[in-house]
Amino acid sequence: MLVLGIDPGTSITGYGLVEAQGGKFKPVSYGCVRTPAGEALPRRLQVIYREVRSLIERYRPDFIAVEELFFNKNTRTALVVGEARGVILLGAADAGLEVWEYTPLQVKQAVAGYGRAEKCQVQEMVRVLLSLPGIPKPDDAADALAVAICHAQSLRWHQACAREVEK
Amino acid sequence: MLVLGIDPGTSITGYGLVEAQGGKFKPVSYGCVRTPAGEALPRRLQVIYREVRSLIERYRPDFIAVEELFFNKNTRTALVVGEARGVILLGAADAGLEVWEYTPLQVKQAVAGYGRAEKCQVQEMVRVLLSLPGIPKPDDAADALAVAICHAQSLRWHQACAREVEK
Repeated sequence: MLVLGIDPGTSITGYGLVEAQGGKFKPVSYGCVRTPAGEALPRRLQVIYREVRSLIERYRPDFIAVEELFFNKNTRTALVVGEARGVILLGAADAGLEVWEYTPLQVKQAVAGYGRAEKCQVQEMVRVLLSLPGIPKPDDAADALAVAICHAQSLRWHQACAREVEK
Repeated sequence: MLVLGIDPGTSITGYGLVEAQGGKFKPVSYGCVRTPAGEALPRRLQVIYREVRSLIERYRPDFIAVEELFFNKNTRTALVVGEARGVILLGAADAGLEVWEYTPLQVKQAVAGYGRAEKCQVQEMVRVLLSLPGIPKPDDAADALAVAICHAQSLRWHQACAREVEK
């Protein structure tokens, strides 16, 4: 299955496409959408919406996964992330895809095996799981890859649980 | 000039269309877009986006005005309002309209003549300025009308200032 992970932000939105098969992961593409700082917010949101739609068109992912906002951030951050998240969720819905959301705790747990893992530990595990020569840059792309891996892991565990129940 | 004021929210987005001419205001239409509580967020954002686009198509306003978020609200509120704001700003940009933003202080000042006015005083002034028999319901519609009036007043003052400077 192909998972598109997204780390929303008004100035930088990270994305990461991960092909997952039986516990193995392959990076398909990752990077970020940068919007010009001088532009008005509505124009920047248009860029984010269009780029997300274009990623979906190009790669046709099976799932989209986004990190839920961490509520220890301040109000300004929440508003700005919210605006970007809004148009990303709209883009996914307009493309007919369901969005899966994970808390930072779930992402850390799934990627690093430990909910209180440091950011650098999560990034190193993303590198290892995807057999990359270095940690993906920028951080937003690494975070997007982490949430994509988290979704793939989470589906596997659900399927394993379902099989256990059937036995 | 016709101004579309919007009060963003994921469950209720208020709107108010005000025709302003030489300091006189006429309510053209007001109300709110309600999204079903049981629906997934991306679907609710689709409803908000479509309704805003449809209001713009139907009434062809000259301006769109939105209230800036009040930062004394909590992070959860900021995120939820941010998501709705994101798709509203996108809708305005997709329709080729510029969005004007006003702080709650500016709205109160413009409508009630006093930046620390109570919510009910602002609502009563909206009723008086628009010659309505009662305060517009729900609150979200009254707030949207207030921000539309604020934009119209603000443009008039700017034009008056410009004329003073020319003298």
